[in-house]
Amino acid sequence: MNGLMMQRSLLVSSLLLHAERHHGSQQIVSRRVEGDIHRYSFRDMASRARRVANALDGLGLAADATLGTLAWNGYRHLELYYGVSGSGRVLHTLNPRLHPDQMAWIADHAEDQALFFDLSFLPLVEAIAARLKTVRHFVLMCERSRMPVDSKIPDLLCYEELVEAAGDAYDWPEFDENRASSLCYTSGTTGNPKGVLYSHRSTLLHSYAVALPDSLSCSARDTILPVVPMFHVNAWGLPYAACMVGAKLVLPGPGLDGKSLHELFEGERVTVSAGVPTVWQGLLSYVEANGLSFSTMRRTIIGGSACPPAMMRAFQENHAVEVLHAWGMTEISPLGTACVLKNDQLDLPREERYAVQAKQGRAVFGVDMKIIAESGEELPWDGRTSGELLVRGPWIVSDYLKGEGGAVLVDGWFPTGDVCTIDADGFMQITDRAKDVIKSGGEWIGSIDLENIAMAHPAVAVAACVAARHPKWDERPLLIVVKKPGAEVSREELLQFYEGRIAKWWTPDDVVFVDAIPLGATGKMQKNKLREQFQDHLLERA
Amino acid sequence: MNGLMMQRSLLVSSLLLHAERHHGSQQIVSRRVEGDIHRYSFRDMASRARRVANALDGLGLAADATLGTLAWNGYRHLELYYGVSGSGRVLHTLNPRLHPDQMAWIADHAEDQALFFDLSFLPLVEAIAARLKTVRHFVLMCERSRMPVDSKIPDLLCYEELVEAAGDAYDWPEFDENRASSLCYTSGTTGNPKGVLYSHRSTLLHSYAVALPDSLSCSARDTILPVVPMFHVNAWGLPYAACMVGAKLVLPGPGLDGKSLHELFEGERVTVSAGVPTVWQGLLSYVEANGLSFSTMRRTIIGGSACPPAMMRAFQENHAVEVLHAWGMTEISPLGTACVLKNDQLDLPREERYAVQAKQGRAVFGVDMKIIAESGEELPWDGRTSGELLVRGPWIVSDYLKGEGGAVLVDGWFPTGDVCTIDADGFMQITDRAKDVIKSGGEWIGSIDLENIAMAHPAVAVAACVAARHPKWDERPLLIVVKKPGAEVSREELLQFYEGRIAKWWTPDDVVFVDAIPLGATGKMQKNKLREQFQDHLLERA
Repeated sequence: MNGLMMQRSLLVSSLLLHAERHHGSQQIVSRRVEGDIHRYSFRDMASRARRVANALDGLGLAADATLGTLAWNGYRHLELYYGVSGSGRVLHTLNPRLHPDQMAWIADHAEDQALFFDLSFLPLVEAIAARLKTVRHFVLMCERSRMPVDSKIPDLLCYEELVEAAGDAYDWPEFDENRASSLCYTSGTTGNPKGVLYSHRSTLLHSYAVALPDSLSCSARDTILPVVPMFHVNAWGLPYAACMVGAKLVLPGPGLDGKSLHELFEGERVTVSAGVPTVWQGLLSYVEANGLSFSTMRRTIIGGSACPPAMMRAFQENHAVEVLHAWGMTEISPLGTACVLKNDQLDLPREERYAVQAKQGRAVFGVDMKIIAESGEELPWDGRTSGELLVRGPWIVSDYLKGEGGAVLVDGWFPTGDVCTIDADGFMQITDRAKDVIKSGGEWIGSIDLENIAMAHPAVAVAACVAARHPKWDERPLLIVVKKPGAEVSREELLQFYEGRIAKWWTPDDVVFVDAIPLGATGKMQKNKLREQFQDHLLERA
Repeated sequence: MNGLMMQRSLLVSSLLLHAERHHGSQQIVSRRVEGDIHRYSFRDMASRARRVANALDGLGLAADATLGTLAWNGYRHLELYYGVSGSGRVLHTLNPRLHPDQMAWIADHAEDQALFFDLSFLPLVEAIAARLKTVRHFVLMCERSRMPVDSKIPDLLCYEELVEAAGDAYDWPEFDENRASSLCYTSGTTGNPKGVLYSHRSTLLHSYAVALPDSLSCSARDTILPVVPMFHVNAWGLPYAACMVGAKLVLPGPGLDGKSLHELFEGERVTVSAGVPTVWQGLLSYVEANGLSFSTMRRTIIGGSACPPAMMRAFQENHAVEVLHAWGMTEISPLGTACVLKNDQLDLPREERYAVQAKQGRAVFGVDMKIIAESGEELPWDGRTSGELLVRGPWIVSDYLKGEGGAVLVDGWFPTGDVCTIDADGFMQITDRAKDVIKSGGEWIGSIDLENIAMAHPAVAVAACVAARHPKWDERPLLIVVKKPGAEVSREELLQFYEGRIAKWWTPDDVVFVDAIPLGATGKMQKNKLREQFQDHLLERA
């Protein structure tokens, strides 16, 4: 017997309708690529999103076309989030930090029918436009007055002209909630990038989970500034969650330096933000160098990679800004866990509290997780045993676009490629990427711990730890270090620094000093490149 | 094109699995019908819910059977919430405050296959057992030692015996999320009660909405005490939301007097509660009479009927407990709106803030609403124009059980029977029930405002305002008043009390003093009975 409840589809457009009706006057503030600050309301945004939908119809773009964007966090990008997905089309956010060849490959693979892009990406798009075989319309996201007089792109369209010419009467269509809403490619350090295709259902359920008090906690009283880019996993779902709860939204455009961010944080009275550690480090340095403070910020969510402990302490102890780890992946929409302390943990001694906060956190409701051994056997949640993390839930990938990469799931679970422990309270801590783990004499050594210790040394700017081949132990850890400008430290001093901080047999076998460590498009260290370069280092030294 | 996300059903059992894995040691504290306090953990509860599921199988109850409960808020009732629904069966919570005839009619109509009941309801069940034609098993929710030696109910089973005899190994089945999970009958002041059949999907979506920061705001740091009964619209979804977020749950059993509640609030460090105004009034009186305070409570959600303004002020100003209106119905699972102020409203002068707080609030995401005139025309959201409230959303009824009451929806919307205004910020305020509105010369007069004014008079204990027939205006308001013990007030004094407080033509035509006003099973005034009794009062007087 089925329940007798209304069958209402969970649709992206319903977020916009809710925001318009219940939070119509709430503000959206954007720092534009043009440099100035733009302000309008949810009501204005909703009206322009309807115009976007009409404009897409007018361009003859099919009702289920995939449309690409190459844009910073800004109001026009937001209008496309709703106008494209709301009309039933698929919003494909491209990452401008990728290599142009890879970008062209992705747009082609996704069969993007149009490409909307910010002024700052004009040279980039001009360089690849001829190679984008499926793209029928190129739309520059600016006013007519800023359109180039002469562009290499034939029939280049002006976004503002399209929007202004379109009517604002439009009824958002209703359809199956499993319909695709948006598309994001994994950055894929190996092999071709793979497309993750979100649905309206997954997006809505994810938004509820994001907004919960123990996740990112979003309310109509909040002002949310997503530093995480809208071109990367939907800015962690914040553009959707903001509409769901009616929060003021502040979109920083390309201005991610400490000064630009701090101005916005203070000027707009931001309460909640989210981003990767490097951005927060820049902000913190700027604030401390200039004797500034945060008067309204109360919570920053850090994901992408682990937050350096010193930075967490500085934010919490000097600035009363709570720092929360969250963990996710493109394949998980992205939110998997958030590290919000439980009641009994609030009373822990400070260092123990920090030890919990160093973890990636507990699963938000909707995400199941387990850890398994190489044999596939499920491992205990004891905070010590580490294994590969598997997850499942309604906003987790089941297949990549066009079946790239073959079968994705293992018995219905998505293998994350992360190696971690889970404690009895359900707090997960990543110890390594499965491919980065160092297998020494049959035992696993997590590279992340080794890197964190090295990075706690005052002379170290960045450290990577990779597996190097070893005649006796198969693999042993090798530490690769970039020193801080002007700082000095020797191999021996660094190795000694590990004493008492880790099991003796985990200590790296050697240290290599380099000028730079290669970073990928999302700012993560490309350890596969380091492994290639240094895999025989210990053999050669021996 | 569909998204490529996992197809995972939203199931009630997943709430329990999450609570067990991530919040296993979190506590559930119950004041038992037996009088003592019982404590265990979510892990214990999950284990016993599995035993319940096995016991149901053991009793030969079909995999989709409907099972009735007649129980207070307590841990055994909670085990049934999960054991019954989780196993695919339908949990039918019966309201013990109904007349026994009505209760028997409902159990029969629902085709309950078993009835689980608290010790305190033994005499009641004994009185109606012979009439319950579909009930095959009667289960008394107590230990063997408390079972009656001799009961009129043949083959009376003991809950604790059943649970202890069953194994705790049980895999919660997976099935379509639209499957029925629970059933609650409307109290229906006219006609037969009607069954509202919730689904797993509606229950899960509703739980997300309930837990949001701007709804009831539930987190793992909270201790939630639902005063609202688990036999009435699932205690506003709190038993589900608590599992979703891992909040400590405190279940007060039958002890809803001020002393019992205050003991639990302080002893268990309760932070959030929810209930109807009468219970809060009792609690407040007890606290003030004994010079007590609330040391951990920070928010109380009030629904069922409007909160007397004086009580709201007392809680907020004397006890630093925020009072939030929420509005819902059995047909809405029940949450429709919550009155959480927006940022800019926090800075309003105190009286204006209270004017907003007096409203029922803004729709939680998932609930669409509109107001219409008698003609069906949609009315503006201006805070002045009142019309009937219609709602729609995935946790709102589409049909009553067995089609009782005929077609329920109007163009896909559920007509709530409430008359209200909605302001430009989306805040809804109920001015009347559609059937209680007074139609004077073609204009509507809301009875609730008139009642609130009368109840603000120091000599008035309770006041009801109903339509009485009038030779010229069709209907005019008639005020029916119960005086406070020992207090005196005249008809003239009361009518004068309206001066300056309301439009002159809204002033009631007469006042009738009575000893008591009839209340229904959920504590609401039965104004239909008053109308029957007094409909000709003005004609007779004339």
